[in-house]
Amino acid sequence: MSVTPPALFCSRCGHAIVRRVPAGDSRSRDCCDSCGAIHYVNPRPVVGTIPVWEDRVLLCRRAIEPRLGLWTLPAGFLEVGESTVEGAVRETLEEAGARIEMGELFSMIDVPYIEQVHLFFRARLLDTDFAAGEESLEVRLFAESEIPWQAMAFRTVATTLRLYFADRAAGRFGVHVQAITAPMPKVPAPHAPA
Amino acid sequence: MSVTPPALFCSRCGHAIVRRVPAGDSRSRDCCDSCGAIHYVNPRPVVGTIPVWEDRVLLCRRAIEPRLGLWTLPAGFLEVGESTVEGAVRETLEEAGARIEMGELFSMIDVPYIEQVHLFFRARLLDTDFAAGEESLEVRLFAESEIPWQAMAFRTVATTLRLYFADRAAGRFGVHVQAITAPMPKVPAPHAPA
Repeated sequence: MSVTPPALFCSRCGHAIVRRVPAGDSRSRDCCDSCGAIHYVNPRPVVGTIPVWEDRVLLCRRAIEPRLGLWTLPAGFLEVGESTVEGAVRETLEEAGARIEMGELFSMIDVPYIEQVHLFFRARLLDTDFAAGEESLEVRLFAESEIPWQAMAFRTVATTLRLYFADRAAGRFGVHVQAITAPMPKVPAPHAPA
Repeated sequence: MSVTPPALFCSRCGHAIVRRVPAGDSRSRDCCDSCGAIHYVNPRPVVGTIPVWEDRVLLCRRAIEPRLGLWTLPAGFLEVGESTVEGAVRETLEEAGARIEMGELFSMIDVPYIEQVHLFFRARLLDTDFAAGEESLEVRLFAESEIPWQAMAFRTVATTLRLYFADRAAGRFGVHVQAITAPMPKVPAPHAPA
């Protein structure tokens, strides 16, 4: 979860990159004055699911940084060559070993300061034979009252879960578009020295 | 509208790139064995609007390749640092000189073979003082019966417009998630030699 580091060399010809506004553009880009390449950088889609079994939701405890040990919905970067639905199904299988019937798009949450767009789909677990994948320490079903709100890995996931439970209580699922526009404020850990 | 060309040189240190599966990954990536960088490539979001004035929709005739001279909804690549809504508003202003009140997300259409995800939002024009931007030859309002279906620049735009008119006729706007999974078949131009 971090922004793209600035390019120093042209990935096409190896020449030094110049950061400037190309002709006909209005933004600074990574330009190569040797081969003429312009290296555009754009936000990346992250795709995931809200896998549900009866009234419980499947969460994964992260085995990798960032946010190792914290809980998340199964999700990850969309790969080239796949659709958002295919990517969300793949991440659910990879991280949670879970087979699902895909449902509707539920949330799209922009996180512009880390150059990401997070997309979550509703999903129904086909069975309870899920298992932690390589990137998960543990995978578990949680009732709403059991959700570890204080140990959530990402705000997009916490936001999506809150919207999900609110919609479920209201008896109608919408599609939610939001943006998280500022980094989480850094607060001292509960047991940090004052 | 094309896929990312393969990287030959590391954009961080200039060393030659090796295409291989990194440890703990399952896909080939652009790896640098000199500085250790892994250069991930992901699909890019394209954001746009369906700007409406009374019963008419605003379309732009493209002044640039690809599809120069054909019609499109205002749309373009999401830029780093902006949300999808901000990007869609910006593109509508840049390409059509149009000020809008943003509405709901309407369509998300994956185009995996060109590594893009297209997102269109409904929007209401605030006035009719629109004007072609640098990337447009012409900007015009079209009633449904006037839409130049045979001269549309992109299938994601044609699909979005068809869904829009269908929903409008039904009196209820949904959110549509689709994928266009294969390139448009190459057909001879009407007046090409047989």
